[in-house]
Amino acid sequence: MIFSDPASVAVVGASDDPAKWGHWLARGALIGRDRRAVHLVNRSGGPVLSEPTVRSLSELPEAPELVVLAVPAAHVPAVVDEALAVGVRGFVGIPAGIDDGVISRIRDAGARLLGPNCLGLFDAATSLHLAWGRFQPGSLGVVSQSGQVGLEIAGLAAESGLGVSRFVSVGNQADVTAAEALLDLVSHDLTTVVGVYLESFGPGIVSAMAELRAAGKPVVLLTVGSSSAAQQAALSHTGALTSSLDVVDAACRRAGAVRVSTPAAVVDLAAVVSSGVPRGCRVGIISDSGGQGAIAADLAAVAGLSVPSLSSVDGLPAVASNPVDLAGAGERDLSNYARAVEVLVRGGDVDTVVLSGYFGSYGADTPSLEDAEVAVAHRICSLARETGVPVAVHSMCADSAAVRALRAGGVPVQHTIERVVAALGDAARLGALSVAAAARSGALSLPLAGAPTGPELSVPAGRIESGDPFRGDPCASLPHQPGYLTARELLSFVRFPRAHAVTSAAEVKATTLTGPYVLKADWLPHKSEHGGVKTGLTDPATAFEEMEARLGPGTYVLEEMDTREDAVELIIGAKRDHSFGPVILVGAGGIHAELFRDTAIELAPVTPATAREMLARLVLAPLLSGRRGAKPVDVTALAELIAQISATLVARPDLSEIELNPVRVGPDGVLAVDALIIPSGDRLNDTSGRRVA
Amino acid sequence: MIFSDPASVAVVGASDDPAKWGHWLARGALIGRDRRAVHLVNRSGGPVLSEPTVRSLSELPEAPELVVLAVPAAHVPAVVDEALAVGVRGFVGIPAGIDDGVISRIRDAGARLLGPNCLGLFDAATSLHLAWGRFQPGSLGVVSQSGQVGLEIAGLAAESGLGVSRFVSVGNQADVTAAEALLDLVSHDLTTVVGVYLESFGPGIVSAMAELRAAGKPVVLLTVGSSSAAQQAALSHTGALTSSLDVVDAACRRAGAVRVSTPAAVVDLAAVVSSGVPRGCRVGIISDSGGQGAIAADLAAVAGLSVPSLSSVDGLPAVASNPVDLAGAGERDLSNYARAVEVLVRGGDVDTVVLSGYFGSYGADTPSLEDAEVAVAHRICSLARETGVPVAVHSMCADSAAVRALRAGGVPVQHTIERVVAALGDAARLGALSVAAAARSGALSLPLAGAPTGPELSVPAGRIESGDPFRGDPCASLPHQPGYLTARELLSFVRFPRAHAVTSAAEVKATTLTGPYVLKADWLPHKSEHGGVKTGLTDPATAFEEMEARLGPGTYVLEEMDTREDAVELIIGAKRDHSFGPVILVGAGGIHAELFRDTAIELAPVTPATAREMLARLVLAPLLSGRRGAKPVDVTALAELIAQISATLVARPDLSEIELNPVRVGPDGVLAVDALIIPSGDRLNDTSGRRVA
Repeated sequence: MIFSDPASVAVVGASDDPAKWGHWLARGALIGRDRRAVHLVNRSGGPVLSEPTVRSLSELPEAPELVVLAVPAAHVPAVVDEALAVGVRGFVGIPAGIDDGVISRIRDAGARLLGPNCLGLFDAATSLHLAWGRFQPGSLGVVSQSGQVGLEIAGLAAESGLGVSRFVSVGNQADVTAAEALLDLVSHDLTTVVGVYLESFGPGIVSAMAELRAAGKPVVLLTVGSSSAAQQAALSHTGALTSSLDVVDAACRRAGAVRVSTPAAVVDLAAVVSSGVPRGCRVGIISDSGGQGAIAADLAAVAGLSVPSLSSVDGLPAVASNPVDLAGAGERDLSNYARAVEVLVRGGDVDTVVLSGYFGSYGADTPSLEDAEVAVAHRICSLARETGVPVAVHSMCADSAAVRALRAGGVPVQHTIERVVAALGDAARLGALSVAAAARSGALSLPLAGAPTGPELSVPAGRIESGDPFRGDPCASLPHQPGYLTARELLSFVRFPRAHAVTSAAEVKATTLTGPYVLKADWLPHKSEHGGVKTGLTDPATAFEEMEARLGPGTYVLEEMDTREDAVELIIGAKRDHSFGPVILVGAGGIHAELFRDTAIELAPVTPATAREMLARLVLAPLLSGRRGAKPVDVTALAELIAQISATLVARPDLSEIELNPVRVGPDGVLAVDALIIPSGDRLNDTSGRRVA
Repeated sequence: MIFSDPASVAVVGASDDPAKWGHWLARGALIGRDRRAVHLVNRSGGPVLSEPTVRSLSELPEAPELVVLAVPAAHVPAVVDEALAVGVRGFVGIPAGIDDGVISRIRDAGARLLGPNCLGLFDAATSLHLAWGRFQPGSLGVVSQSGQVGLEIAGLAAESGLGVSRFVSVGNQADVTAAEALLDLVSHDLTTVVGVYLESFGPGIVSAMAELRAAGKPVVLLTVGSSSAAQQAALSHTGALTSSLDVVDAACRRAGAVRVSTPAAVVDLAAVVSSGVPRGCRVGIISDSGGQGAIAADLAAVAGLSVPSLSSVDGLPAVASNPVDLAGAGERDLSNYARAVEVLVRGGDVDTVVLSGYFGSYGADTPSLEDAEVAVAHRICSLARETGVPVAVHSMCADSAAVRALRAGGVPVQHTIERVVAALGDAARLGALSVAAAARSGALSLPLAGAPTGPELSVPAGRIESGDPFRGDPCASLPHQPGYLTARELLSFVRFPRAHAVTSAAEVKATTLTGPYVLKADWLPHKSEHGGVKTGLTDPATAFEEMEARLGPGTYVLEEMDTREDAVELIIGAKRDHSFGPVILVGAGGIHAELFRDTAIELAPVTPATAREMLARLVLAPLLSGRRGAKPVDVTALAELIAQISATLVARPDLSEIELNPVRVGPDGVLAVDALIIPSGDRLNDTSGRRVA
């Protein structure tokens, strides 16, 4: 309770100067004076905000439970030592630059520190106002690694009518982490929805978000990184195709949370779902202008929402259905706005409703209409509450009695249609996740995969027979960069074409494999780019001589070529992410992988069921179910292979990456045509584990 | 001058009831009373807004030049007839449903009608206020097919400080068209930037937008249609790949205009460019929070902007460069905000600047800082004006003295960062177009293409030699749906593989072509989907027997297969758009065409230079310049082929579509591997010409 409802608080550095932080923090602390003892400490003594102060903590009759450090960093060590000596249990560290020694002393004394370099905390339930800024009490819990981003979220929440239940600026997280602050919200009754801003992801974040979601509190994550430094030069396609935000999105799916890109998106989404998460992505659009309805419908399509036809237009005071064009009906009778909303929220055809246009402006333009308009606003709020179908409004009027009535009644109102539709799109994503995340949670306890069970291939299977992925260990001591043959041995559960090592043209000529052939330089990771692979060979010996002349002597691989015309090329890759650990990727393979970036990424391991979902998300998914009337490919075997690759990386900490590219899948099975494994500790892959922020 | 500065105006239907339109229109008209005679007409007589009225137009001492029809539609015919009888020259038709006979009588009398079904017009230069709503005089010219969307734009323009120079609600365009209203703005001095909302595109729109742009007035087009009815079942891939908005975008590029999706986007972009169009897409980001800077940078990447490193950080009061993180420097000294802006706008590294965060809030939170903050705001405005580098601000404060000072000084301020960055992204698109559009304008007078000049192919060229695209006319009377062979003959300037018609296995056996072969059913448009094409044949006679057994007797085509491994597959298609006429498309071909929708579309005809630009826009462009160290493909021949196909559709009104798919291009030239032509008048292709709205 130190940070949520302390029995007593002291603000050290309290000031009468309104330009100083100590002024704001003292003013905030005093708000909670009815509930707890509030002490102001000022080195010069003398009243602050007309309240008496003491010169130091030792002058207080009893030790405060929580101390706000609002003094310059240089003064912090002395204040902390004094505080610990008198028995203080918690600190809010406002200044940046509190040194590690002080932090250690706090921890060693069994006390806790929020920050340093934070803007403080606020709790609407306990009148605890120990943060810079103003807060409107409400239902959004805010945890932020950046104080100012947190304040922007809190400010927008106040404007939207949502308000803030709790605000925790975790700053540098030297002691209290964002994950702890999130877990604290699970049992925080006022909090019904959570917005979190993070720039790094420590351990426990995913499970904290999942616990909040399980407690019925949707989590909206704001983070950055899409623009961060050009992608590192990656040894593998998997590395080049996996951005840090892709992995964050995978972590969010696992936790049932939704990632957004701006503070407004956090608040707009939170406002929509604070009273209920939509059951699907079907949106009903009502407008008093055909143009505004069409604009909303276009935005809905971009946001991933569908605008279905209505099964019935009974009772609809409109000339067109979805978008519902009220034309002059609203102007003739304001209650037609609520009537249209009612038809949609009760009709069962849509999961959310947008009202866009002039509504909200009547009273502002014609004061005699204000009361009638407010009554309609109340009716709309009741309809949303009663049916649980989220309704959101775009009004041409920025502020009016009706707009305020809607917001107070839990119906979000925005002044631009893009904010409304984006929030409903995000809400639909969140709604879809609640189901998917539950289905996927089993993956967390996935038993490591056994032998693959796909049908026999009609193309020749690899010379290394299928088996347990962890039978033996062909690279107990992995070379710096294992070649293709080593990868084949390690991944013994994968089906490869028949192949063998060759080091001379004579060995090539003596092969018992059947053509057409493929010749590869075993040791090259990006074979195509370096002329280290030749396909479709009918005279492999000549090709060997040419390639050896170019690349020098070494181990080459002669392989039977997979010539199935009906096969689709994919990439399957697994790598370790700095923050979230093993991840698995599947995507369009071959030359299209990096061009079209058609990929699906999840935290590893995944079950075959999740792997199927990943495949279904790909743009190329239609090819898998049989392109142009062809037979569907063997998705069962493909999904099992994805699951096995994901489990293998999890089980093998000595591996940093595993990549099969391309994997060719046809109606008669899956064949990996090239493979790459990268040992942990490779120069291009920092595998030092999760980064602790 | 009837609609911009009439000598006299009469409002017919003037009313004292504030809930009636005639009240607002009378009130607006009276605003211009210092400049022109304003007459109010009311059937009951008696004062309106304390002004005397007459009962009918005939009671007036002289005929008003312009009459506002603010009476119910049923009364319009009588009013119009009376007006025409006394010599009225122009009408503003507010009600919907004015019948065609009345409109004809207006035209026959040589008078003009704005509307019907419109909200009227406003001109800030002449105090002409004949529209419902309030307008803040400014620099944005607004032309809107939807009155309410136009009003929303005007309202947002007032809030942004941009204001409206002219507002024309064209309604149903029964007489005055949107194109005319746009052309009127070319010489309208107050108008420096134009926003237009259209749902349909009549003749003259593209050239009107181009004239405005040539006059130095950027045009922002808002339209709808991305969500409109599922794509029609299309006979060709070109049809399926060409959405109506793709074509609008092509028209905008031709005109040097930019399309956006919402009213706010119109105003936000207009506000950015009203003082100058950025020269490029490099943005400098300044924030007093690292988090807010990173959020802006992420959005910039999504908006197509680049966030370059700064060549020098001299004078920058910051801990990091671009995003420039002021940390506490702004708080220590407010002038550091202007200092940072100055370093960026003068440094030459960026084309636009974003300031995001707390600035604008100082005075609101700490009144003693207001004057200093406003002074900094003025300095920022001066810097933007002096350097011509657009600066836009995101402030956590929705409204303050500093925010108002920035807006008044021409620096747009938004309360959400997404609006700022989206506008700068749109502005950069506009800036890029000014150059491209000028370069492309030559295409409008493109001489029809002559013989192709590409290098000789190393694969066998078609049996029909290259030549003039319009030599002869193999299908003077086109069959209902011409087959592949007819298309080959018509497109005699295209290189196809060697081929000939076969109708029996004996003819196949007697071929002099060399394998591997391709066998096609000549008459089928979507051959692959219907099993009407088989490739890689070494025994074509057997394949013929199998295919004939399945598809029945008919004309089949035996063809030499293009086996080049280094060829890239594309689609080239030309079709007629309902609104804009012939368009040309190039994109990823084969199975990837519809999956990845990687296409570039322009109005036809295009020059080879424009065709090259189209190719450069494709996601697959890197493949054309030589993938994985391979030789670049013959882009010259490819661009010429695109230009020729585009010119052919323009020159052949009897054709509705031409499609080559796939076209295979390698380092040694271009070969079309399938072709489809669709005659005009086909059931799936309405080629009745441009739609007149």
